[in-house]
Amino acid sequence: MDRLPAYDHKIVLITGGLGFIGSNMAHRLAACSRAKIRIVDSLHPACGGNPRNLDDIVRPAEVHTFDMRDAAKLRETVRDVDVVFNLAGQISHIDSMDHPLQDLQANAEAHLGLLETCRAHNPGARIVFSSTRQCYGRPQRLPVDEEHPILPLDINGVNKYAGESYHRIYRQAHGLETCSLRLTNTYGPRQLIRHSRQGFIGWFIHQILCDDEIVLFGGGTQIRDLTYVDCVVDALLLAGSHPDAPGRIYNLAGPQPVSLLEIVEMMIAISGKGRYRIAPFPEEHRRIDIGSYYGSSARIQAELGWRPRVELREGLSRALEFFEKRRHMYLKA
Amino acid sequence: MDRLPAYDHKIVLITGGLGFIGSNMAHRLAACSRAKIRIVDSLHPACGGNPRNLDDIVRPAEVHTFDMRDAAKLRETVRDVDVVFNLAGQISHIDSMDHPLQDLQANAEAHLGLLETCRAHNPGARIVFSSTRQCYGRPQRLPVDEEHPILPLDINGVNKYAGESYHRIYRQAHGLETCSLRLTNTYGPRQLIRHSRQGFIGWFIHQILCDDEIVLFGGGTQIRDLTYVDCVVDALLLAGSHPDAPGRIYNLAGPQPVSLLEIVEMMIAISGKGRYRIAPFPEEHRRIDIGSYYGSSARIQAELGWRPRVELREGLSRALEFFEKRRHMYLKA
Repeated sequence: MDRLPAYDHKIVLITGGLGFIGSNMAHRLAACSRAKIRIVDSLHPACGGNPRNLDDIVRPAEVHTFDMRDAAKLRETVRDVDVVFNLAGQISHIDSMDHPLQDLQANAEAHLGLLETCRAHNPGARIVFSSTRQCYGRPQRLPVDEEHPILPLDINGVNKYAGESYHRIYRQAHGLETCSLRLTNTYGPRQLIRHSRQGFIGWFIHQILCDDEIVLFGGGTQIRDLTYVDCVVDALLLAGSHPDAPGRIYNLAGPQPVSLLEIVEMMIAISGKGRYRIAPFPEEHRRIDIGSYYGSSARIQAELGWRPRVELREGLSRALEFFEKRRHMYLKA
Repeated sequence: MDRLPAYDHKIVLITGGLGFIGSNMAHRLAACSRAKIRIVDSLHPACGGNPRNLDDIVRPAEVHTFDMRDAAKLRETVRDVDVVFNLAGQISHIDSMDHPLQDLQANAEAHLGLLETCRAHNPGARIVFSSTRQCYGRPQRLPVDEEHPILPLDINGVNKYAGESYHRIYRQAHGLETCSLRLTNTYGPRQLIRHSRQGFIGWFIHQILCDDEIVLFGGGTQIRDLTYVDCVVDALLLAGSHPDAPGRIYNLAGPQPVSLLEIVEMMIAISGKGRYRIAPFPEEHRRIDIGSYYGSSARIQAELGWRPRVELREGLSRALEFFEKRRHMYLKA
């Protein structure tokens, strides 16, 4: 992987750094730069944090376990950092409907607190926020670009959009160096796969590894664009160092639109095991379902030069291999 | 004023019922219906609640003073109500930038808690939420209709949009009978006028009554559409009783677009006193200023039959007369 000279000797804070994307970021920075890596993670059971995600990291990261809403601890952690990758959050749409106030705390309140802390104690830090395509709700046109109307369909989408908007406003009103990426479905090593509440891909992987039957709702015809986690880390690193990124909002999009059925069939072909059946949509999913989605990342390609470099088959192969080797760490007990 | 038979013998909860619009709602229901009127108000100093706003009410209302985030108290207050006029909130854009976490609590968290309480304990109640044109941010076209892009420019707008979105989602996902009105600048009796942080009209009224010099920023050329509070109460009452209202979002708009300069000159002409001068925009205002705004209320006119019936001159006359008679209660000490 390419060296990252822009991060050498920088102090980099990763919120949610024990989670899926955050821990992949930590591994990358450890391997490809001389950045000082600092992590904050609440290890809240509803989020995806897992200390084992840092296993085998080539240089140690400094890990602080506390809830970002603890203003005093956050102040100490933030005051000297150069870049914040603000990736902490609760990502389950279903959980957000069952426990909406927890979702509000994790996805809105915690970020407003971080921005207030940076405004007061470190206004020069670059802050990159991981937002989500969930802001758009059900697509009114495809591919979805950044000008698509905002109409989130679940509590998670509302609170993530609030979190993103706080970052935008702290740029416009207070001059902070914020930038947001709207992620689509991300997959790869270190994602949470032991239950189905944090997205379908992780659960598919789990079922393949266990040779369990995958249930495809609604015929599996729904379209998504999956982004491999290394490509998401590429984009975050660009947004954290490129001079034109502050004040911008960028979609990430996968290398190709693909149906859920195609994804499952590809996983089965790669791993040589697994099976599936088709079933109707359960009610609690249907009401907040967005139908088919794929995005356009033309803006970030034009402005920062990012594009997803890992094809779906390659990414799925790497992910399945990673988890196959670490079954004892990632599969449910 | 017309009788309101739809509200006879109904239990009506007004959150923020000691505030500007809420207290006018209470007066109207007391005078024109046999509704049982129940009020919740935090009397938080940053909000607009004032117990004197219920002076001279023709039938008493039941008043509960607590923060809506108190789930146990809210449950007892909500469980038997037929209609909730959910008007509580923090409305100052400037305060929301200085104390964003308080704004989040008042404008997002409190409403999510109310909706959760209704979902669990009174899912059949009609809930009407007072949202705001601030969701739109700086107008991209005029007049602004409900399809205008969402891009709030200040923390208050973000949190109000989150509050509105929760109401929409609790309709779509849980079947609650919610409806939201996006209010524009509202004026009239019982509004807070003793400082400038809750909108310019109240402060203009205060300055006129004190014969103080009004400072018009940016030449006074900015356009607004002012809605008289009785017209807003009309719309809320329609939304609380009309069978087609649940699930809908409606703009309210004033009877005419008007510049700030015209408003001030009209006030001076009506009251026979007051004066003004032109000044540049202060920085803290400029950064969150939305420029000129006026809305279209064609949707609510077509669907519920609402239109603003009080012209600006008439409304300003009534407001100035109300406050002139109650200077000791509403002017700053």
